[in-house]
Amino acid sequence: MKVYIIGTGLIGGSFALDIQQEYPEAVIYGVDLNAQHIKEALECGVIHEEASFEDLQNADVVFLTIPVDVALSVLPKVLDIIQDNALVIDVGSTKQRICEVVKEHPKRRNFLAAHPIAGTEFSGPKAALRGLYKQKTNIICEVEKTAFKLQEKALDIFSKIGMRIRYMDAVSHDKHIAYVSHLSHISSFMLGKTVIDKEKNERDIFDMAGSGFESTVRLAKSSPAMWTPIFEQNKENIVETLDEYIGNLKQFKKLMEEHKFDQVFEEMQQTNHISTILKGIK
Amino acid sequence: MKVYIIGTGLIGGSFALDIQQEYPEAVIYGVDLNAQHIKEALECGVIHEEASFEDLQNADVVFLTIPVDVALSVLPKVLDIIQDNALVIDVGSTKQRICEVVKEHPKRRNFLAAHPIAGTEFSGPKAALRGLYKQKTNIICEVEKTAFKLQEKALDIFSKIGMRIRYMDAVSHDKHIAYVSHLSHISSFMLGKTVIDKEKNERDIFDMAGSGFESTVRLAKSSPAMWTPIFEQNKENIVETLDEYIGNLKQFKKLMEEHKFDQVFEEMQQTNHISTILKGIK
Repeated sequence: MKVYIIGTGLIGGSFALDIQQEYPEAVIYGVDLNAQHIKEALECGVIHEEASFEDLQNADVVFLTIPVDVALSVLPKVLDIIQDNALVIDVGSTKQRICEVVKEHPKRRNFLAAHPIAGTEFSGPKAALRGLYKQKTNIICEVEKTAFKLQEKALDIFSKIGMRIRYMDAVSHDKHIAYVSHLSHISSFMLGKTVIDKEKNERDIFDMAGSGFESTVRLAKSSPAMWTPIFEQNKENIVETLDEYIGNLKQFKKLMEEHKFDQVFEEMQQTNHISTILKGIK
Repeated sequence: MKVYIIGTGLIGGSFALDIQQEYPEAVIYGVDLNAQHIKEALECGVIHEEASFEDLQNADVVFLTIPVDVALSVLPKVLDIIQDNALVIDVGSTKQRICEVVKEHPKRRNFLAAHPIAGTEFSGPKAALRGLYKQKTNIICEVEKTAFKLQEKALDIFSKIGMRIRYMDAVSHDKHIAYVSHLSHISSFMLGKTVIDKEKNERDIFDMAGSGFESTVRLAKSSPAMWTPIFEQNKENIVETLDEYIGNLKQFKKLMEEHKFDQVFEEMQQTNHISTILKGIK
């Protein structure tokens, strides 16, 4: 099996490592405009060989693991070049636009739109982790538009690397993921900004920060190059989540200002059952 | 050494476990109005014996590990009852009000105001952890108001259980801790609320949540009974942090609405160096 990873970063690199483990005969090719990434991916054993875009005509499976804005222009070109029996999987964090862009493509049935809910706040080939996808959810959109045999091939890969599959339409995916992922990133970036702005002249203050602060601002280490196009593509949904989040924060502040601490207690108690909801998330 | 823990929860219980380890001859007494907590604390080996409030006259060291509103009324009574050479340590997350309340107490020099920056989102004696305080920061306020010999005794304990000490006045403590701790808790609770409100009829959606969401809402599992009085005592500082946080979120939303994604990128990139700041936080 010849597997081409377009974009040899954390996400693509982690797929490469798991596929090497599960398919010992697979040869992993890396396609990346960033020569440094190719060099590192070869050094870390993430890919076996460098490849050019034209080599994609030899691919059995292509993973498109690049920022979602670049993916919009690259995916149609990938579909143009591949053979009739090749499978192309994109793994971006937004699904509506990418599905639209290839809706009428003659090779639409070679494409599978996926979103593996996995990652870390780090990026690049060195951040790739074996087992990153184990027990993680993989959302597949518009599965009926992918050729049956290629669905099977994709599910075989996802199953071997231990992922749980959920099916969803692309519009619903983008709406819900704004709440359970994109909003978290913005809340974390803005929390980091608020504290850094305030304490920039008093660096010792960060000695006072504990694991709670670390946990809430962890996502503020994420790559702006990856996240800016995600926020752009999912703008309407995210603005809606921000409106609701800001509204809730204002309401909480108002309760504090009016010294209604019985209601402050209530607000927190009603949210405590997040612990039940979170069970099962790793 | 006779050590009395008033409030046998996560914080008090974890001190008890570490002191047992470092001072094998110490006897740990638990004082708690909650009979279930005393029962559990005995079962888990967190305390050796139950004690009454009156028994505090036999104490060498007293840890006051109860919600900060209760501490305001209990601390003066503890100082009233103890012997002249006993040390009383309070570990609440706000320091200004507790220092004020005993400012004129005849046994002020028996009291040490501390804030160990450690904890988890869990509570109760079963949540107590050995080693919780290792390498964690402990902020001591108004150290000069504590008798020198009792400062020494306290530092011996904190040093043996592995804590790093920082000194600060109580007003500065409350101002800065609002940014690096209290704000994180509110941002997390309101994030949890926003998502639960939106998705309450679609519980499957939480299958889409990954480790990023889990990380940002982890603190929303925290105890409202513990946090409500903290928010009340530190109201002015927290309202200020909320104003700034809400302002930053609104600004980010405006950039998105105006489609200024180059500035969205800048905002995130400028916050990325939080990763440097966080180094060293566990």
